[in-house]
Amino acid sequence: MNKRKICVIVASRANYGRIKSVLQAISAHDRLELQLIVEASALLYKYGNVIETIEQDGLKVTATAYSVVDGENLVTMAKSTGLAVMELSTLFDQLKPDVVLTVADRFETMATAVTASYMNIAVAHTQGGELTGSIDESVRHAISKLSHIHFPSNDEAAKVLYQLGENPERVYITGCPAIDLAANAVSQKTENLFELYGGTGYPLNWDKPYIVVLQHPVTTEYTQGAKQIEETLEAVRRVGMQTVWLWPNVDAGSDAIAKRLRMFLAADEGFPVHFYRNFRPEDYVHLINRAVCLVGNSSSGIREGAFLGTPVVNIGTRQNCRQRGENVMDVQYDSKAIYDAIQLQLAHGKYNSVSLYGDGGAGERIADILSSCDLSITKSFFHV
Amino acid sequence: MNKRKICVIVASRANYGRIKSVLQAISAHDRLELQLIVEASALLYKYGNVIETIEQDGLKVTATAYSVVDGENLVTMAKSTGLAVMELSTLFDQLKPDVVLTVADRFETMATAVTASYMNIAVAHTQGGELTGSIDESVRHAISKLSHIHFPSNDEAAKVLYQLGENPERVYITGCPAIDLAANAVSQKTENLFELYGGTGYPLNWDKPYIVVLQHPVTTEYTQGAKQIEETLEAVRRVGMQTVWLWPNVDAGSDAIAKRLRMFLAADEGFPVHFYRNFRPEDYVHLINRAVCLVGNSSSGIREGAFLGTPVVNIGTRQNCRQRGENVMDVQYDSKAIYDAIQLQLAHGKYNSVSLYGDGGAGERIADILSSCDLSITKSFFHV
Amino acid sequence: MNKRKICVIVASRANYGRIKSVLQAISAHDRLELQLIVEASALLYKYGNVIETIEQDGLKVTATAYSVVDGENLVTMAKSTGLAVMELSTLFDQLKPDVVLTVADRFETMATAVTASYMNIAVAHTQGGELTGSIDESVRHAISKLSHIHFPSNDEAAKVLYQLGENPERVYITGCPAIDLAANAVSQKTENLFELYGGTGYPLNWDKPYIVVLQHPVTTEYTQGAKQIEETLEAVRRVGMQTVWLWPNVDAGSDAIAKRLRMFLAADEGFPVHFYRNFRPEDYVHLINRAVCLVGNSSSGIREGAFLGTPVVNIGTRQNCRQRGENVMDVQYDSKAIYDAIQLQLAHGKYNSVSLYGDGGAGERIADILSSCDLSITKSFFHV
Amino acid sequence: MNKRKICVIVASRANYGRIKSVLQAISAHDRLELQLIVEASALLYKYGNVIETIEQDGLKVTATAYSVVDGENLVTMAKSTGLAVMELSTLFDQLKPDVVLTVADRFETMATAVTASYMNIAVAHTQGGELTGSIDESVRHAISKLSHIHFPSNDEAAKVLYQLGENPERVYITGCPAIDLAANAVSQKTENLFELYGGTGYPLNWDKPYIVVLQHPVTTEYTQGAKQIEETLEAVRRVGMQTVWLWPNVDAGSDAIAKRLRMFLAADEGFPVHFYRNFRPEDYVHLINRAVCLVGNSSSGIREGAFLGTPVVNIGTRQNCRQRGENVMDVQYDSKAIYDAIQLQLAHGKYNSVSLYGDGGAGERIADILSSCDLSITKSFFHV
Repeated sequence: MNKRKICVIVASRANYGRIKSVLQAISAHDRLELQLIVEASALLYKYGNVIETIEQDGLKVTATAYSVVDGENLVTMAKSTGLAVMELSTLFDQLKPDVVLTVADRFETMATAVTASYMNIAVAHTQGGELTGSIDESVRHAISKLSHIHFPSNDEAAKVLYQLGENPERVYITGCPAIDLAANAVSQKTENLFELYGGTGYPLNWDKPYIVVLQHPVTTEYTQGAKQIEETLEAVRRVGMQTVWLWPNVDAGSDAIAKRLRMFLAADEGFPVHFYRNFRPEDYVHLINRAVCLVGNSSSGIREGAFLGTPVVNIGTRQNCRQRGENVMDVQYDSKAIYDAIQLQLAHGKYNSVSLYGDGGAGERIADILSSCDLSITKSFFHV
Repeated sequence: MNKRKICVIVASRANYGRIKSVLQAISAHDRLELQLIVEASALLYKYGNVIETIEQDGLKVTATAYSVVDGENLVTMAKSTGLAVMELSTLFDQLKPDVVLTVADRFETMATAVTASYMNIAVAHTQGGELTGSIDESVRHAISKLSHIHFPSNDEAAKVLYQLGENPERVYITGCPAIDLAANAVSQKTENLFELYGGTGYPLNWDKPYIVVLQHPVTTEYTQGAKQIEETLEAVRRVGMQTVWLWPNVDAGSDAIAKRLRMFLAADEGFPVHFYRNFRPEDYVHLINRAVCLVGNSSSGIREGAFLGTPVVNIGTRQNCRQRGENVMDVQYDSKAIYDAIQLQLAHGKYNSVSLYGDGGAGERIADILSSCDLSITKSFFHV
Repeated sequence: MNKRKICVIVASRANYGRIKSVLQAISAHDRLELQLIVEASALLYKYGNVIETIEQDGLKVTATAYSVVDGENLVTMAKSTGLAVMELSTLFDQLKPDVVLTVADRFETMATAVTASYMNIAVAHTQGGELTGSIDESVRHAISKLSHIHFPSNDEAAKVLYQLGENPERVYITGCPAIDLAANAVSQKTENLFELYGGTGYPLNWDKPYIVVLQHPVTTEYTQGAKQIEETLEAVRRVGMQTVWLWPNVDAGSDAIAKRLRMFLAADEGFPVHFYRNFRPEDYVHLINRAVCLVGNSSSGIREGAFLGTPVVNIGTRQNCRQRGENVMDVQYDSKAIYDAIQLQLAHGKYNSVSLYGDGGAGERIADILSSCDLSITKSFFHV
Repeated sequence: MNKRKICVIVASRANYGRIKSVLQAISAHDRLELQLIVEASALLYKYGNVIETIEQDGLKVTATAYSVVDGENLVTMAKSTGLAVMELSTLFDQLKPDVVLTVADRFETMATAVTASYMNIAVAHTQGGELTGSIDESVRHAISKLSHIHFPSNDEAAKVLYQLGENPERVYITGCPAIDLAANAVSQKTENLFELYGGTGYPLNWDKPYIVVLQHPVTTEYTQGAKQIEETLEAVRRVGMQTVWLWPNVDAGSDAIAKRLRMFLAADEGFPVHFYRNFRPEDYVHLINRAVCLVGNSSSGIREGAFLGTPVVNIGTRQNCRQRGENVMDVQYDSKAIYDAIQLQLAHGKYNSVSLYGDGGAGERIADILSSCDLSITKSFFHV
């Protein structure tokens, strides 16, 4: 019997952590063949050179495509999407996958869904139906409308997919694969990550408490990026605790933020902050699992954070409508509010684990379903 | 007061007829400035050189972009979408429109919606919410999820947009601008179009009855294109009446169909069939208004046809779920069934006019709304 | 021992005939591995679907790339070059060839040379150093300046390469592979090609004399294409002999010519002209070997024509400075002059064979050299 | 009388300094209209945000194009060239220039020359005919073969253009516009540039002697970039003098070098080195005019350096064959040799000014010639 060819596109640092357990489950599955395309910022040094991590994890990369047009603004975000479509169409034509599996909601994900659906290839999608209230949400829903097979994280998300008119029989509530890594990681021994990874900045002490900051640009508030990061910087400086700061991802506006961070790094030499570009996904879980507080606007605080019980200070609009556990405290772009929330979270400490976004078995479930589900590319609208 | 800059993208022959009355209304509006981009197959001779028609109609083209990658298959359809995104991003960056208005559901439309939404430009969309049961429908819904302002044709379509989670306050039921042309045209005197346009094939007599055939490839049934057209050809040959045949549009599969049509043209020299690439939109309305039957799978049979009362034989799956009037008779890809349906329609004659897709005033309504409506680019999901 | 990987790019109908014997020799060579990329117009039906011919000839295609931006004008010619560079860079990165072999002088050839040389891959080039006096010549010399290994057709061409500052040790005078096919073909029995190939137009008689017309647009005289073809059409009509007409290639201006030809085909129904898109290279040799005269501006009249002794009427500037044998009569774009020259050539009949552009052994020579030559990518300018 | 439209493409930091005096002369010329396109790395913050400098200098930017595909390796260098061709073809089609003026020899320059020559636009080129012995030289000569009007720096370069077969009547020895800036700048008062520009690193003293380092990756020695920079770093550290270090440009390999430099910056905190991304062209001249030694492989050491008399230590192969004055001392990638050469240059001090690459009046000469010269796009090969 021919194996089904499942083509997975990893386009960024975030993508990889959210799909790794699926990649491993597909690789190990005897009725599936993995075609792994690594593209976009996942190939770039400044976004953490994710391809290296992937290969170190023992996964074989089938093809690569450079598709990021440099500029990190709204024009180049659009242009990068177009370039990704052009590159992926050539690769899909070579690889002739039975299914293309695309992850979440970033602009590279859109390129994948457009290309595959136009080429009459069944599209499977993780994280569909989640509400977050930004361009990411619009893109996520648009991808759902182009997708044939859905792997939402939970019941709430599935309900949104039903309302969007998707066929309930093709909606499989599997949990999010990102939680698989979290579940796995917390059961393993942790190394001293500060020693393991280079980064730049003040040397940190692994045995002392630290906070983690990860704040991405909000593309619909493009011009306020530098100002927004300023508020966070001020709050963090005032808190005065050891700080692990992760570079933002490739969205429009990241350049302005990065510039501001470099200035901070240069100016506040004595402050105990250390900057990192990338962690292996499991190490990232360890990092935030041990953090006394996660500050910023990363979805990982809400999603993995719920499972890990990490106290989170979530800033601004980026995660606006996302379903969240008690571990998340929401604040505006305001240094005082951020500072106060961090203090409250430090006082509270760890929260209980909640399986909001999955229980740790998503990867195997998704691989199993892909090995046997209907791959038809016809769709029709389901009225609620 | 600054005029609002409304950028409209005309990408194909079909696009133009469906937006022309809006273009004219925007041009004439004292609070709006029209930015007209002509791209994709609308620039190509073999698809009717639509840009020439546009300029003859007195509209000023602001910019053009060649974006069709030659090949007319699924790979190049995807690649053309990518190229359109790359080109449009440069043009939007130059033109800085306040709104981008995109038409219907073809792949070029998707490129427009992706580019504008990623660039934080408000996207307005016509024909959203219609159900048709093919990749076009998926694309249409995906575009709705990226759009901010909706101009659906009728209540049914609006209800679909509500279910998709769109904000009802930003859904304006205006009717479809294509019907404006139909309403206008039927009140005007008709010239002899057979004399006016060149085309190739047997010379036809404008004063005798004729049928019109327009059958596009169905991209999700890509490989069956030649076979499908064969059934239609056989039925038409058997009917034996004067036939106006329109070349299919640029979708994947059109090359195979065109090849088959050229063979027919070469082989059946005595048969009264004449091939045309393009009519001015109004002339197209006249053409199908006077036709004794419209055969194929064009949406114009269902949409303009309802208004004009033209008898239609609709073949295959392309218009599957589209809301239709009594003038439409549906058949499969089967020459006998097609032949029988044509005979029934010839026997029936004209139907009564029905305002299913609009009443003729959409263009002015849309321009008015665009001059005053909220242009915010934030969206959130509305639960039904 | 590892085989050297030789990547050959076939981008058009003309390309294939000029490199086929090399492809066969590389395939058969025990120290070489052939990587065959088919791209651009060689993938398109309307330019003869060359990829089908290639596969019928038993050659294995390694990868394909759609790279023609539709429009057939100067803008899309440039854009197609850019797209080819983008596509080829992805493919070269996958295939990691030791040498990229590029053919002659068309715009796709430029894309190949730019991509390979920027990627530090040794570039080998056939037909370098020939003088022809158009943009093709400029492009050909530019490619030579980016190439590392040269396979010119004859001493004259080699001298031009020396003047261009190329290293004489890397210039191998092998003859042109196109002549290999000619030499081979004339020794074989000919089938009735008029029966074998479809085409459109008047049915021709294989046993009666015929002329062949092949006239490409001259891209630097872009706007005069239709006018120029008009003169030829008039002369051919006046000659009144059976005529085989070949569609021009994909250069800017071909659309206007094709349009004019279609009009001719429609209007002059009784005239014995038949149109073809493509012949297998060997069949093309047979075709012009048997023709009583070859009319137009194809280099094949001058190059293969010299070897075959076919009488040629060469029109206009496209082959201006190309070294030629006695079989070529040059005329301007003037119907009277073209008519007179055809009459003179019909009166003269066949010429003696001359080995101006090769003797029939180029393919094997080139394969042998590629298996052992220096592949260094450093170059320096040689003063004459 | 219509003004001639001269379209100049500035694609990088280096481009701008080498063409600025021409831009000013065209702007001021009453028979010329300047169309200024800024593209590629000239738009990017990390390469010095050159567009800001241009606008501060009072020049009006006509259009921009993002064309750098991120990755800074050989694949993306090729891909960026392709993207630039695609973008420029759209812009040239809009702007319809009479002449496109392209600068020197980088990959973006190639894109400009290919696009313009394919679009039948006259191409003018500065710095043609110079010998430097790397891929840059091959590209420079290829561009000359696509260009119609040549503005070489000196007699030696003109002789190379003659050998390349260019028409001597279209070769104008004007000197290099880069020297215009140098001539101008030395006559003006200097500010304290260390205060004026930000940069990162150790604070330097403007009144004390300093050396300048500028070492680009050599794309044909792509993999050795980090190793090569290592040798220079060691030598500079051993010299121990105040050091101004400029970030390398966008060529393949720059990422690896930048990474190594950041490590150095982080590790050797006490060392008096300061890093800068960009200087206004005149300020760059001041900087190297005052430097006691310029170290690295920038052509500015050889070209502007000859005029300024700055002692130069030129490392490696990048400027191999370039014609040079006595101020240049050549060494290999060897820390000891670099150290020794720096010491010798420090001991020697300033050299006499030599007009090898121009005398300061190139900008006005070029504008004058462009206003009246033949713009024909036909070319033929001139035998020497």
